[in-house]
Amino acid sequence: MNQSQTQNRRILLASRPTGWPTTDNFKHVTEAVPEPGPKEVLVRALWLSVDPYMRGRMSAAKSYAKPVEIGEVMTGGMVGQVVKSNHKAFAPGEIVEGSLGWQDYAVADAALLRKIDPRLAPIQTAVGILGMPGMTAYFATLEVCQPKAGDTVLVSGAAGAVGQIVGQIAKINGCRAVGIAGGDDKLAYIQRELGFDAVINYKTSNDLSKAVAAACPNGVDVYFDNVGGAVSEAVFNNLAFKARIVICGQISQYNIDKPDLGPRNLRYMLVNRARMEGFLVWDWRDRYPEALRRMAGWIKEGKIKYSEHVTEGLEKTPDAFIAMLKGANLGKALVKVADPA
Amino acid sequence: MNQSQTQNRRILLASRPTGWPTTDNFKHVTEAVPEPGPKEVLVRALWLSVDPYMRGRMSAAKSYAKPVEIGEVMTGGMVGQVVKSNHKAFAPGEIVEGSLGWQDYAVADAALLRKIDPRLAPIQTAVGILGMPGMTAYFATLEVCQPKAGDTVLVSGAAGAVGQIVGQIAKINGCRAVGIAGGDDKLAYIQRELGFDAVINYKTSNDLSKAVAAACPNGVDVYFDNVGGAVSEAVFNNLAFKARIVICGQISQYNIDKPDLGPRNLRYMLVNRARMEGFLVWDWRDRYPEALRRMAGWIKEGKIKYSEHVTEGLEKTPDAFIAMLKGANLGKALVKVADPA
Repeated sequence: MNQSQTQNRRILLASRPTGWPTTDNFKHVTEAVPEPGPKEVLVRALWLSVDPYMRGRMSAAKSYAKPVEIGEVMTGGMVGQVVKSNHKAFAPGEIVEGSLGWQDYAVADAALLRKIDPRLAPIQTAVGILGMPGMTAYFATLEVCQPKAGDTVLVSGAAGAVGQIVGQIAKINGCRAVGIAGGDDKLAYIQRELGFDAVINYKTSNDLSKAVAAACPNGVDVYFDNVGGAVSEAVFNNLAFKARIVICGQISQYNIDKPDLGPRNLRYMLVNRARMEGFLVWDWRDRYPEALRRMAGWIKEGKIKYSEHVTEGLEKTPDAFIAMLKGANLGKALVKVADPA
Repeated sequence: MNQSQTQNRRILLASRPTGWPTTDNFKHVTEAVPEPGPKEVLVRALWLSVDPYMRGRMSAAKSYAKPVEIGEVMTGGMVGQVVKSNHKAFAPGEIVEGSLGWQDYAVADAALLRKIDPRLAPIQTAVGILGMPGMTAYFATLEVCQPKAGDTVLVSGAAGAVGQIVGQIAKINGCRAVGIAGGDDKLAYIQRELGFDAVINYKTSNDLSKAVAAACPNGVDVYFDNVGGAVSEAVFNNLAFKARIVICGQISQYNIDKPDLGPRNLRYMLVNRARMEGFLVWDWRDRYPEALRRMAGWIKEGKIKYSEHVTEGLEKTPDAFIAMLKGANLGKALVKVADPA
């Protein structure tokens, strides 16, 4: 091992944030590189993923997964390279993906690793379009919302890792894609490069309900929600009959310390006979292979494009994470840790 | 015709209410009994139904049906008797049900009338358990919420025309039925007489979320919502995994003039992978015969009971309606207008 391979930089949760997280919520430590036990694999980080769901894991509130404990390494997806393997399914040098946390080295249960073929696509897509965000966009759009040709599909957080793909899947299915995001550069990108039919800047709109009405003159048939809060309320005022809503994220609510209040009235559900479902991609894991094949095909055919927002250096992961929560990223927010050996 | 059969008392919408309706929003007029045209039927009112949805029709806001115009007769379900018929399907003396409004006499398009067999059940059940409220309870519970044995089924407005039936259908399906209502007399009735397993008085509860948690220790699998607002928020804090929510009414929101505010956060949908749907019974009209047969069977077998809250006299219909909106009724709110000839 060279010097960089004898020490393991790790980023731990130091304290639980109230409101927005800060870099003070994390603690950087350096430890010895661990040894893999029987059936285990030692993986070196090449790429780390920063995603909105991680904000939930910093909190002790009840959620779909247990929180990261104080003093534990921060959770998160990693694309890495096998350094040592005590499992016959993995060999040194191979590229793998798993939830291995914010650190240079992780010892992993082989059963929880996915092997990545670097010839098929850039390896970091394993935490992007060919990973959790891509699978989220695929199953939540197609299986939950069941878009049909001619539907208006509106997505919030449209310039993010999931939102970009949702709009393009909508287009492939013959739908009209409308995106809501904060920032004219982002909106220009998704409209010009990704083919969204209409876009709305929620930060500069004076009347978001009217902006949605103008962008969706026949109402919103499908609403893919990554954001929640006032943005969603504006959409709910503009649902079409038999609208389908999927709740994938509520990022507007993750960093507030007092509740964001709005009308407690679900009349829009009744009037439009709308359907709303909460979504977690993990529930669909048995069907990832089917979706990965299809998504890879669409990328190859040029029907789906993706963009990446890369921060360099493991030590910058907290900054990259906080910037992503604040909407600085266009596309998938990634941290590049090292090149493959 | 005797004297009462030469004049038609009619109750018109005089003005649109802001907040709670008052008797001043209605105008009582007396007109000549109308003559049926070709294919039409003249019906004399025996019973009128007063229901929460009528509050929506008094308002000009967009809804699933067009509003009653100022000066028009108030809309509403009627059980009546055919006086004259220009349609071969109906004969004088027969009992019919239709949306014929708050008046002694109505001329009806024969196609919009349903013939009622008075030998099968008391005729007023045609606007109650064997009519719109019963069909709502049946389809919204069984088809939308798909309860399975062991589920906890929670219904708001549990002592009302729909809520009473929802709990009993839940019991027939092997579920645990929990009811929320305002008033200990109502709660005692649905628990002792209708077999609800647990009840919650939302008016006297100090902490409604905790009360729901105590009454539903394994969480709420099915939430049948007639009420909305703070009651629903307390339920949403206590959903079980894969909870199903049907939005049938939002009566808490119908008579407020400024919005009832609560947290704008749908995280509970995501965490529990819950499903929510808006429901309108009219969408299920093609399947009423199936439901009516089954409901009539359950009544005959004593598996479903129902109660009626009867006000006497057409002129009292506005009072009966307002009292129902305020929750004065236990079971189906009805106005008795006349006995059959």
